[in-house]
Amino acid sequence: MITLYYAQNTCALASHIALEDAGAAYATRRIDFTANQQQSPAYLAVNPKGRVPAMVTDRGILTESPAMLAFIAQTYPAAKLAPLDDAFAFAQVQSFNAYLCATLHVAHSHRMRGARWASEAASFEDMRRNVPRAVGACFDLIERDYLKGPWVMGEAYTICDPYLFTFAQWLEGDGVDPARIPNVIAHRQRMNERPSVRKALAEEFA
Amino acid sequence: MITLYYAQNTCALASHIALEDAGAAYATRRIDFTANQQQSPAYLAVNPKGRVPAMVTDRGILTESPAMLAFIAQTYPAAKLAPLDDAFAFAQVQSFNAYLCATLHVAHSHRMRGARWASEAASFEDMRRNVPRAVGACFDLIERDYLKGPWVMGEAYTICDPYLFTFAQWLEGDGVDPARIPNVIAHRQRMNERPSVRKALAEEFA
Repeated sequence: MITLYYAQNTCALASHIALEDAGAAYATRRIDFTANQQQSPAYLAVNPKGRVPAMVTDRGILTESPAMLAFIAQTYPAAKLAPLDDAFAFAQVQSFNAYLCATLHVAHSHRMRGARWASEAASFEDMRRNVPRAVGACFDLIERDYLKGPWVMGEAYTICDPYLFTFAQWLEGDGVDPARIPNVIAHRQRMNERPSVRKALAEEFA
Repeated sequence: MITLYYAQNTCALASHIALEDAGAAYATRRIDFTANQQQSPAYLAVNPKGRVPAMVTDRGILTESPAMLAFIAQTYPAAKLAPLDDAFAFAQVQSFNAYLCATLHVAHSHRMRGARWASEAASFEDMRRNVPRAVGACFDLIERDYLKGPWVMGEAYTICDPYLFTFAQWLEGDGVDPARIPNVIAHRQRMNERPSVRKALAEEFA
Protein backbone atom coordinates (compact mmCIF):
# COMPACT_ATOMS: atom_id res chain seq x y z
CA MET A 1 0.00 0.00 0.00
CA ILE A 2 1.30 3.41 -1.02
CA THR A 3 0.26 6.77 0.41
CA LEU A 4 0.88 9.77 -1.83
CA TYR A 5 1.16 13.21 -0.27
CA TYR A 6 0.19 15.90 -2.75
CA ALA A 7 -1.00 19.48 -2.94
CA GLN A 8 -3.30 21.01 -5.52
CA ASN A 9 -1.62 22.42 -8.60
CA THR A 10 1.76 20.90 -7.90
CA CYS A 11 4.03 18.43 -9.66
CA ALA A 12 2.65 15.69 -7.40
CA LEU A 13 -0.04 15.29 -10.05
CA ALA A 14 2.45 13.35 -12.22
CA SER A 15 2.95 10.62 -9.62
CA HIS A 16 -0.79 10.58 -8.88
CA ILE A 17 -1.58 9.88 -12.54
CA ALA A 18 1.21 7.30 -12.78
CA LEU A 19 -0.17 5.43 -9.76
CA GLU A 20 -3.53 5.34 -11.53
CA ASP A 21 -1.87 4.20 -14.76
CA ALA A 22 -0.06 1.48 -12.82
CA GLY A 23 -3.23 0.15 -11.23
CA ALA A 24 -1.53 0.54 -7.87
CA ALA A 25 -3.28 0.21 -4.52
CA TYR A 26 -2.78 3.65 -3.02
CA ALA A 27 -4.31 6.36 -0.89
CA THR A 28 -3.75 10.10 -1.08
CA ARG A 29 -3.33 12.79 1.55
CA ARG A 30 -3.74 16.42 0.62
CA ILE A 31 -1.31 18.98 2.02
CA ASP A 32 -2.78 22.48 2.15
CA PHE A 33 -0.16 24.95 0.94
CA THR A 34 -2.47 27.89 1.73
CA ALA A 35 -2.25 26.83 5.40
CA ASN A 36 1.52 26.18 5.04
CA GLN A 37 0.98 22.55 6.07
CA GLN A 38 4.10 21.57 4.16
CA GLN A 39 6.13 23.21 6.93
CA SER A 40 4.19 21.58 9.79
CA PRO A 41 6.19 19.30 12.11
CA ALA A 42 3.93 16.39 11.13
CA TYR A 43 4.68 16.80 7.44
CA LEU A 44 8.37 17.59 7.94
CA ALA A 45 8.59 14.20 9.63
CA VAL A 46 7.42 12.69 6.32
CA ASN A 47 9.48 14.96 4.06
CA PRO A 48 12.14 17.11 5.71
CA LYS A 49 12.34 19.16 2.50
CA GLY A 50 8.87 20.57 3.21
CA ARG A 51 7.72 19.96 -0.34
CA VAL A 52 5.46 17.62 -2.27
CA PRO A 53 5.26 14.99 -3.54
CA ALA A 54 6.21 12.38 -1.00
CA MET A 55 5.25 8.73 -1.16
CA VAL A 56 5.07 6.42 1.84
CA THR A 57 5.75 2.82 0.90
CA ASP A 58 6.09 -0.37 2.91
CA ARG A 59 9.86 0.11 2.73
CA GLY A 60 10.02 3.79 3.62
CA ILE A 61 9.45 7.24 2.20
CA LEU A 62 10.40 8.46 -1.27
CA THR A 63 10.57 12.00 -2.59
CA GLU A 64 11.48 13.70 -5.91
CA SER A 65 9.18 13.12 -8.87
CA PRO A 66 11.66 11.49 -11.31
CA ALA A 67 12.68 8.92 -8.69
CA MET A 68 9.08 8.24 -7.69
CA LEU A 69 7.96 7.86 -11.31
CA ALA A 70 10.74 5.37 -12.05
CA PHE A 71 9.87 3.52 -8.85
CA ILE A 72 6.22 3.25 -9.88
CA ALA A 73 7.25 1.93 -13.31
CA GLN A 74 9.61 -0.64 -11.80
CA THR A 75 7.20 -1.72 -9.06
CA TYR A 76 4.29 -2.29 -11.47
CA PRO A 77 6.06 -3.70 -14.55
CA ALA A 78 2.83 -5.11 -16.03
CA ALA A 79 1.67 -1.54 -16.67
CA LYS A 80 4.66 -1.03 -19.01
CA LEU A 81 5.21 2.57 -17.96
CA ALA A 82 8.92 2.52 -18.90
CA PRO A 83 11.26 0.39 -21.05
CA LEU A 84 12.63 -1.50 -18.05
CA ASP A 85 14.66 -4.05 -20.01
CA ASP A 86 16.57 -1.54 -22.14
CA ALA A 87 19.05 0.62 -20.23
CA PHE A 88 19.43 3.12 -23.06
CA ALA A 89 15.70 3.59 -23.64
CA PHE A 90 15.16 3.84 -19.88
CA ALA A 91 17.88 6.50 -19.75
CA GLN A 92 16.08 8.48 -22.45
CA VAL A 93 12.94 8.40 -20.30
CA GLN A 94 14.93 9.48 -17.27
CA SER A 95 16.74 12.20 -19.22
CA PHE A 96 13.45 13.74 -20.31
CA ASN A 97 12.12 13.64 -16.75
CA ALA A 98 15.33 15.12 -15.34
CA TYR A 99 15.01 18.01 -17.79
CA LEU A 100 11.44 18.65 -16.64
CA CYS A 101 12.48 18.49 -12.99
CA ALA A 102 15.65 20.56 -13.11
CA THR A 103 15.03 23.00 -15.97
CA LEU A 104 11.33 23.39 -16.84
CA HIS A 105 10.02 23.15 -13.28
CA VAL A 106 12.77 25.45 -12.03
CA ALA A 107 11.99 28.01 -14.74
CA HIS A 108 8.31 27.88 -13.70
CA SER A 109 9.16 28.22 -10.00
CA HIS A 110 10.66 31.66 -10.58
CA ARG A 111 7.12 32.95 -11.03
CA MET A 112 6.09 32.47 -7.40
CA ARG A 113 9.04 31.02 -5.52
CA GLY A 114 11.69 33.68 -6.08
CA ALA A 115 12.41 33.84 -2.36
CA ARG A 116 14.25 30.55 -2.73
CA TRP A 117 17.02 32.38 -4.58
CA ALA A 118 16.70 36.11 -3.90
CA SER A 119 15.50 38.59 -1.28
CA GLU A 120 14.40 41.81 -3.00
CA ALA A 121 10.92 42.56 -4.34
CA ALA A 122 12.50 44.02 -7.49
CA SER A 123 14.28 40.72 -8.15
CA PHE A 124 11.03 38.78 -7.77
CA GLU A 125 9.41 41.11 -10.30
CA ASP A 126 12.35 40.69 -12.67
CA MET A 127 12.11 36.90 -12.34
CA ARG A 128 8.37 36.97 -13.01
CA ARG A 129 8.92 39.03 -16.15
CA ASN A 130 11.39 36.41 -17.40
CA VAL A 131 9.16 33.38 -16.79
CA PRO A 132 7.48 33.47 -20.24
CA ARG A 133 10.92 33.51 -21.89
CA ALA A 134 12.51 30.85 -19.67
CA VAL A 135 9.53 28.46 -19.58
CA GLY A 136 8.82 29.14 -23.26
CA ALA A 137 12.36 28.13 -24.22
CA CYS A 138 11.87 24.80 -22.44
CA PHE A 139 8.60 24.10 -24.22
CA ASP A 140 10.14 25.13 -27.55
CA LEU A 141 12.93 22.61 -27.04
CA ILE A 142 10.46 19.88 -26.07
CA GLU A 143 8.25 20.70 -29.06
CA ARG A 144 11.18 20.68 -31.49
CA ASP A 145 13.47 17.95 -30.20
CA TYR A 146 11.91 15.69 -27.60
CA LEU A 147 8.18 15.09 -27.97
CA LYS A 148 7.99 12.31 -30.56
CA GLY A 149 4.22 11.83 -30.59
CA PRO A 150 1.68 10.62 -29.95
CA TRP A 151 3.40 10.17 -26.58
CA VAL A 152 6.67 11.70 -25.45
CA MET A 153 8.71 8.61 -26.32
CA GLY A 154 6.67 7.78 -29.44
CA GLU A 155 4.17 4.96 -29.63
CA ALA A 156 4.65 3.84 -26.05
CA TYR A 157 3.04 5.77 -23.21
CA THR A 158 5.58 6.18 -20.37
CA ILE A 159 6.17 8.01 -17.09
CA CYS A 160 7.27 10.99 -19.21
CA ASP A 161 3.69 11.65 -20.24
CA PRO A 162 2.01 12.49 -16.92
CA TYR A 163 5.05 14.56 -15.97
CA LEU A 164 4.95 16.67 -19.15
CA PHE A 165 1.16 16.96 -18.80
CA THR A 166 1.60 18.37 -15.30
CA PHE A 167 3.74 21.28 -16.49
CA ALA A 168 1.55 21.80 -19.55
CA GLN A 169 -1.28 22.59 -17.11
CA TRP A 170 0.56 25.77 -16.20
CA LEU A 171 1.89 27.09 -19.49
CA GLU A 172 -0.77 29.72 -20.11
CA GLY A 173 -0.29 30.94 -16.54
CA ASP A 174 3.43 31.10 -17.25
CA GLY A 175 2.74 33.39 -20.21
CA VAL A 176 3.61 30.88 -22.94
CA ASP A 177 1.56 31.18 -26.12
CA PRO A 178 0.03 27.74 -26.80
CA ALA A 179 0.03 28.47 -30.54
CA ARG A 180 3.79 28.09 -30.71
CA ILE A 181 3.79 24.53 -29.31
CA PRO A 182 1.01 22.66 -31.12
CA ASN A 183 2.44 19.21 -30.38
CA VAL A 184 2.58 19.92 -26.65
CA ILE A 185 -1.02 21.14 -26.76
CA ALA A 186 -2.16 18.06 -28.71
CA HIS A 187 -0.37 15.89 -26.14
CA ARG A 188 -2.16 17.72 -23.33
CA GLN A 189 -5.50 17.09 -24.99
CA ARG A 190 -4.66 13.42 -25.53
CA MET A 191 -3.79 13.14 -21.84
CA ASN A 192 -7.00 14.86 -20.79
CA GLU A 193 -8.94 12.06 -22.44
CA ARG A 194 -7.32 9.29 -20.39
CA PRO A 195 -9.38 7.86 -17.51
CA SER A 196 -6.31 7.86 -15.22
CA VAL A 197 -5.85 11.58 -15.77
CA ARG A 198 -9.52 12.36 -15.25
CA LYS A 199 -9.60 10.35 -12.04
CA ALA A 200 -6.49 12.02 -10.57
CA LEU A 201 -7.68 15.52 -11.53
CA ALA A 202 -11.17 14.88 -10.18
CA GLU A 203 -9.77 13.80 -6.84
CA GLU A 204 -7.26 16.63 -6.51
CA PHE A 205 -9.83 19.29 -7.37
CA ALA A 206 -12.78 17.76 -5.50
CA MET B 1 32.52 2.83 -26.73
CA ILE B 2 31.25 5.94 -24.96
CA THR B 3 32.33 9.53 -25.58
CA LEU B 4 31.74 11.96 -22.73
CA TYR B 5 31.52 15.66 -23.47
CA TYR B 6 32.53 17.70 -20.44
CA ALA B 7 33.75 21.13 -19.45
CA GLN B 8 36.07 22.00 -16.60
CA ASN B 9 34.41 22.71 -13.26
CA THR B 10 31.00 21.43 -14.28
CA CYS B 11 28.70 18.66 -13.12
CA ALA B 12 30.06 16.49 -15.96
CA LEU B 13 32.72 15.45 -13.45
CA ALA B 14 30.21 13.12 -11.79
CA SER B 15 29.69 11.05 -14.93
CA HIS B 16 33.42 11.12 -15.66
CA ILE B 17 34.20 9.60 -12.27
CA ALA B 18 31.36 7.08 -12.61
CA LEU B 19 32.72 5.92 -15.98
CA GLU B 20 36.07 5.37 -14.29
CA ASP B 21 34.41 3.55 -11.39
CA ALA B 22 32.56 1.36 -13.88
CA GLY B 23 35.72 0.37 -15.75
CA ALA B 24 34.03 1.57 -18.94
CA ALA B 25 35.76 1.98 -22.28
CA TYR B 26 35.31 5.68 -22.96
CA ALA B 27 36.88 8.77 -24.41
CA THR B 28 36.38 12.39 -23.39
CA ARG B 29 36.00 15.60 -25.34
CA ARG B 30 36.47 18.92 -23.61
CA ILE B 31 34.06 21.77 -24.38
CA ASP B 32 35.59 25.19 -23.74
CA PHE B 33 33.00 27.35 -21.99
CA THR B 34 35.34 30.38 -22.11
CA ALA B 35 35.12 30.18 -25.93
CA ASN B 36 31.35 29.50 -25.70
CA GLN B 37 31.84 26.19 -27.51
CA GLN B 38 28.68 24.84 -25.86
CA GLN B 39 26.70 27.11 -28.21
CA SER B 40 28.61 26.14 -31.37
CA PRO B 41 26.58 24.46 -34.14
CA ALA B 42 28.81 21.38 -33.86
CA TYR B 43 28.06 20.97 -30.16
CA LEU B 44 24.39 21.88 -30.45
CA ALA B 45 24.11 18.95 -32.89
CA VAL B 46 25.27 16.74 -30.00
CA ASN B 47 23.21 18.45 -27.28
CA PRO B 48 20.58 20.97 -28.39
CA LYS B 49 20.43 22.24 -24.80
CA GLY B 50 23.92 23.72 -25.17
CA ARG B 51 25.06 22.32 -21.86
CA VAL B 52 27.28 19.58 -20.50
CA PRO B 53 27.45 16.71 -19.88
CA ALA B 54 26.46 14.76 -22.95
CA MET B 55 27.36 11.16 -23.62
CA VAL B 56 27.52 9.59 -27.06
CA THR B 57 26.79 5.87 -26.95
CA ASP B 58 26.41 3.21 -29.64
CA ARG B 59 22.64 3.71 -29.34
CA GLY B 60 22.54 7.49 -29.37
CA ILE B 61 23.14 10.52 -27.21
CA LEU B 62 22.20 10.93 -23.56
CA THR B 63 22.09 14.08 -21.45
CA GLU B 64 21.20 15.00 -17.84
CA SER B 65 23.48 13.72 -15.09
CA PRO B 66 20.98 11.64 -13.08
CA ALA B 67 19.93 9.73 -16.22
CA MET B 68 23.54 9.25 -17.34
CA LEU B 69 24.63 8.05 -13.91
CA ALA B 70 21.81 5.48 -13.74
CA PHE B 71 22.66 4.39 -17.29
CA ILE B 72 26.31 3.85 -16.34
CA ALA B 73 25.26 1.82 -13.30
CA GLN B 74 22.87 -0.32 -15.35
CA THR B 75 25.27 -0.80 -18.27
CA TYR B 76 28.16 -1.93 -16.06
CA PRO B 77 26.38 -3.98 -13.38
CA ALA B 78 29.56 -5.73 -12.28
CA ALA B 79 30.78 -2.42 -10.84
CA LYS B 80 27.79 -2.42 -8.44
CA LEU B 81 27.29 1.34 -8.63
CA ALA B 82 23.59 1.13 -7.73
CA PRO B 83 21.21 -1.40 -6.11
CA LEU B 84 19.82 -2.54 -9.46
CA ASP B 85 17.76 -5.44 -8.13
CA ASP B 86 15.88 -3.45 -5.49
CA ALA B 87 13.43 -0.87 -6.85
CA PHE B 88 13.07 0.92 -3.52
CA ALA B 89 16.80 1.19 -2.85
CA PHE B 90 17.36 2.28 -6.48
CA ALA B 91 14.68 4.96 -5.99
CA GLN B 92 16.49 6.23 -2.91
CA VAL B 93 19.63 6.60 -5.03
CA GLN B 94 17.67 8.36 -7.72
CA SER B 95 15.89 10.59 -5.22
CA PHE B 96 19.21 11.80 -3.82
CA ASN B 97 20.55 12.50 -7.30
CA ALA B 98 17.36 14.30 -8.33
CA TYR B 99 17.72 16.55 -5.30
CA LEU B 100 21.30 17.39 -6.27
CA CYS B 101 20.25 18.08 -9.86
CA ALA B 102 17.12 20.11 -9.28
CA THR B 103 17.76 21.83 -5.95
CA LEU B 104 21.47 21.96 -5.01
CA HIS B 105 22.78 22.51 -8.54
CA VAL B 106 20.06 25.07 -9.24
CA ALA B 107 20.89 26.95 -6.02
CA HIS B 108 24.56 27.01 -7.06
CA SER B 109 23.72 28.19 -10.58
CA HIS B 110 22.26 31.42 -9.23
CA ARG B 111 25.83 32.55 -8.51
CA MET B 112 26.85 32.88 -12.15
CA ARG B 113 23.88 31.93 -14.33
CA GLY B 114 21.27 34.42 -13.15
CA ALA B 115 20.55 35.43 -16.76
CA ARG B 116 18.65 32.17 -17.13
CA TRP B 117 15.91 33.57 -14.89
CA ALA B 118 16.28 37.37 -14.72
CA SER B 119 17.52 40.36 -16.71
CA GLU B 120 18.67 43.07 -14.30
CA ALA B 121 22.15 43.46 -12.83
CA ALA B 122 20.60 44.19 -9.43
CA SER B 123 18.76 40.86 -9.55
CA PHE B 124 21.98 39.00 -10.35
CA GLU B 125 23.64 40.67 -7.37
CA ASP B 126 20.70 39.77 -5.14
CA MET B 127 20.86 36.15 -6.33
CA ARG B 128 24.61 36.02 -5.67
CA ARG B 129 24.09 37.32 -2.14
CA ASN B 130 21.59 34.51 -1.50
CA VAL B 131 23.77 31.65 -2.78
CA PRO B 132 25.44 30.95 0.59
CA ARG B 133 22.00 30.67 2.20
CA ALA B 134 20.39 28.59 -0.55
CA VAL B 135 23.33 26.25 -1.18
CA GLY B 136 24.05 26.07 2.54
CA ALA B 137 20.49 24.92 3.26
CA CYS B 138 20.94 22.07 0.76
CA PHE B 139 24.19 20.94 2.33
CA ASP B 140 22.67 21.20 5.82
CA LEU B 141 19.83 18.90 4.76
CA ILE B 142 22.28 16.43 3.19
CA GLU B 143 24.49 16.53 6.28
CA ARG B 144 21.57 16.00 8.66
CA ASP B 145 19.23 13.66 6.78
CA TYR B 146 20.76 12.01 3.74
CA LEU B 147 24.50 11.30 3.96
CA LYS B 148 24.62 8.00 5.85
CA GLY B 149 28.38 7.45 5.74
CA PRO B 150 30.92 6.40 4.86
CA TRP B 151 29.19 6.76 1.48
CA VAL B 152 25.96 8.56 0.73
CA MET B 153 23.88 5.37 0.87
CA GLY B 154 25.88 3.82 3.71
CA GLU B 155 28.36 1.00 3.27
CA ALA B 156 27.87 0.72 -0.48
CA TYR B 157 29.50 3.23 -2.82
CA THR B 158 26.98 4.31 -5.48
CA ILE B 159 26.42 6.85 -8.25
CA CYS B 160 25.34 9.28 -5.52
CA ASP B 161 28.94 9.65 -4.36
CA PRO B 162 30.64 11.18 -7.40
CA TYR B 163 27.63 13.47 -7.86
CA LEU B 164 27.75 14.79 -4.29
CA PHE B 165 31.54 15.12 -4.56
CA THR B 166 31.13 17.29 -7.66
CA PHE B 167 29.02 19.88 -5.85
CA ALA B 168 31.21 19.66 -2.75
CA GLN B 169 34.07 20.96 -4.93
CA TRP B 170 32.27 24.28 -5.11
CA LEU B 171 30.94 24.83 -1.61
CA GLU B 172 33.63 27.23 -0.41
CA GLY B 173 33.17 29.22 -3.62
CA ASP B 174 29.47 29.26 -2.88
CA GLY B 175 30.18 30.81 0.52
CA VAL B 176 29.27 27.76 2.61
CA ASP B 177 31.32 27.31 5.78
CA PRO B 178 32.80 23.78 5.65
CA ALA B 179 32.82 23.66 9.46
CA ARG B 180 29.05 23.27 9.56
CA ILE B 181 29.00 20.15 7.39
CA PRO B 182 31.75 17.86 8.72
CA ASN B 183 30.27 14.69 7.22
CA VAL B 184 30.14 16.23 3.74
CA ILE B 185 33.77 17.35 4.12
CA ALA B 186 34.86 13.91 5.31
CA HIS B 187 33.05 12.39 2.33
CA ARG B 188 34.86 14.79 0.00
CA GLN B 189 38.20 13.77 1.47
CA ARG B 190 37.31 10.07 1.16
CA MET B 191 36.42 10.64 -2.49
CA ASN B 192 39.67 12.51 -3.11
CA GLU B 193 41.58 9.38 -2.14
CA ARG B 194 39.91 7.16 -4.77
CA PRO B 195 41.96 6.41 -7.88
CA SER B 196 38.90 6.96 -10.12
CA VAL B 197 38.47 10.46 -8.75
CA ARG B 198 42.16 11.29 -9.08
CA LYS B 199 42.21 10.07 -12.67
CA ALA B 200 39.15 12.07 -13.72
CA LEU B 201 40.35 15.24 -11.99
CA ALA B 202 43.87 14.89 -13.47
CA GLU B 203 42.45 14.59 -16.96
CA GLU B 204 39.96 17.46 -16.63
CA PHE B 205 42.57 19.82 -15.20
CA ALA B 206 45.53 18.72 -17.37
